Amino acid sequence: MNPIVQCVPNISEGKDLDKIKRIIKPLQNQDGFKLISYEPDKDYNRTVITLIGHPDMMIKPLLKFYEIASHEIDLNYHKGEHPRMGAVDVCPFIPIQNITMDDCIQYAKKFGELIQNHLNIPVFLYAMAAQKPNRVLLPDIRKGEFEGMKDKIKEKEWFPDFGKPEIHSTFGVAAIGARMPLIAYNIDLDTDNEKTARQIAKYIRGSSGGFQYVQAGPALLKERNHVQVTMNILDYAKNAIYRILELVKIESKRFNVHVTSSEVVGLIPKEALLDSLKYYQKAHQETFDKDMSLEEVTKLSIKYLQLRDFDIYKIIEANL
Amino acid sequence: MNPIVQCVPNISEGKDLDKIKRIIKPLQNQDGFKLISYEPDKDYNRTVITLIGHPDMMIKPLLKFYEIASHEIDLNYHKGEHPRMGAVDVCPFIPIQNITMDDCIQYAKKFGELIQNHLNIPVFLYAMAAQKPNRVLLPDIRKGEFEGMKDKIKEKEWFPDFGKPEIHSTFGVAAIGARMPLIAYNIDLDTDNEKTARQIAKYIRGSSGGFQYVQAGPALLKERNHVQVTMNILDYAKNAIYRILELVKIESKRFNVHVTSSEVVGLIPKEALLDSLKYYQKAHQETFDKDMSLEEVTKLSIKYLQLRDFDIYKIIEANL
Repeated sequence: MNPIVQCVPNISEGKDLDKIKRIIKPLQNQDGFKLISYEPDKDYNRTVITLIGHPDMMIKPLLKFYEIASHEIDLNYHKGEHPRMGAVDVCPFIPIQNITMDDCIQYAKKFGELIQNHLNIPVFLYAMAAQKPNRVLLPDIRKGEFEGMKDKIKEKEWFPDFGKPEIHSTFGVAAIGARMPLIAYNIDLDTDNEKTARQIAKYIRGSSGGFQYVQAGPALLKERNHVQVTMNILDYAKNAIYRILELVKIESKRFNVHVTSSEVVGLIPKEALLDSLKYYQKAHQETFDKDMSLEEVTKLSIKYLQLRDFDIYKIIEANL
Repeated sequence: MNPIVQCVPNISEGKDLDKIKRIIKPLQNQDGFKLISYEPDKDYNRTVITLIGHPDMMIKPLLKFYEIASHEIDLNYHKGEHPRMGAVDVCPFIPIQNITMDDCIQYAKKFGELIQNHLNIPVFLYAMAAQKPNRVLLPDIRKGEFEGMKDKIKEKEWFPDFGKPEIHSTFGVAAIGARMPLIAYNIDLDTDNEKTARQIAKYIRGSSGGFQYVQAGPALLKERNHVQVTMNILDYAKNAIYRILELVKIESKRFNVHVTSSEVVGLIPKEALLDSLKYYQKAHQETFDKDMSLEEVTKLSIKYLQLRDFDIYKIIEANL
């Protein structure tokens, strides 16, 4: 059986659609893996790209993709709501089928070395691929962002895992890692007050005492004219989506604002949705069928989690 | 200015009121501190005793109290819903006014040594007074309870801080510590299904990914014929009561049960109540007055937190 990984590079460009298309070109119509989606966000000025398939087949096209990004994106001129330190900001390998986490860590190392050798970009290995404890959490590495990294990378504890302690003058640095599937999840509020989103994010995230596996912050979506609580759910088995969404609704009350919708960026495992549907169906005294079709999962998830811009192909299992 | 501590010994007897009165006799009508309350619980078979005053004045009466407890309580015959390992199970010193945490740690050590010397009871120092990392969290020390402690205490990593590695045959072991004020808080459910309370406790507590400073478990109150989610809130500034209560209400929905009331065992800082009242009053678009009287705090807390068996003297500040 072929090994299948999910690979989710994020590039620091979310506005110029032509440029984005030029950068992702090497990832399209390739043998052995699929470009599932690319999701540009103008406010974040960032695009999340999702690949699924055989990791061996991804390596060469990914290298080409990094090379084009290094020509097309100059971080000295980049502004956006999402923190970033590289033109291709992060690139995690995620085990999906017939492959272990250890294998994914090896792919991250191999690919990180390749990037450094061919493009002279300094590389940090992060998450499960981290070689030092201070590199497990991406926000720790990224603290100070592109602008701060010029000096930070010269501190001994922040020497890169591959390459010299000096940023690439336009690309910045690359973070390459291996991790379990996480869920990038955002909850929309009907206010443009960023302080409200910041306060609610603080109430729910692990670093300030909230849900342990939730990293959350505020984001102002100028295009849409409202804020959202933006988060990564690092362990959806322990921090279920419904629980986070319902708590955000509770906290919203004190600010007299409302949750209008929510969104999943990238892919989401079926299991994570079923877990929340089980809650809502039981709470509504409906019958929960764990063997429901992916179409049904999609329909009910849109209803109960108030998902916008969602369809069946956002579910990992629909792409296998 | 005199230093003021709160001291909250818990004894493993909650049924025999005459016995309880004999044990707490040395703590009554003393100079320099007040016996604020003693709260026997038949289901827990445990009594929480609250003292407030000058720590120097408490030491001698507390020693006498331990001595009587060691005669009156035999843990070989103790059954109750609350885990326990000693006749006086725990005894924390809590800084309230004109005293530092370091001072309280010193009182814990001094008193622990005294107990060991006079009564030959092995003593574990816990929480901020812990001398080893495995003794910071009380549940880690208490795991296995009285019955398991006979063997556990002989393992090198569980040698007591004072005394020989052998339990007192009837008393068991003592845990003496220093900590910030915590809130012992229980939420009542209208079901007698302990599994429901266990599941909800798991969703909310830090050890399984929930709120970081919440330790929670299930308890069946046979006398009252319902279960409760029983918890300690170790840092109420980070894990507000209202947030925990509201999340328990959310989780209850999936089991088709309801929160009927909640209770504070021992004392609670005014600040913790104000923090929740601020939430509820804002959510109800009422005016929140942070300088409201303690009577008003009491009234509104009973209303919004659905507190039972609550009065103004459960608020620390009403006893100073």
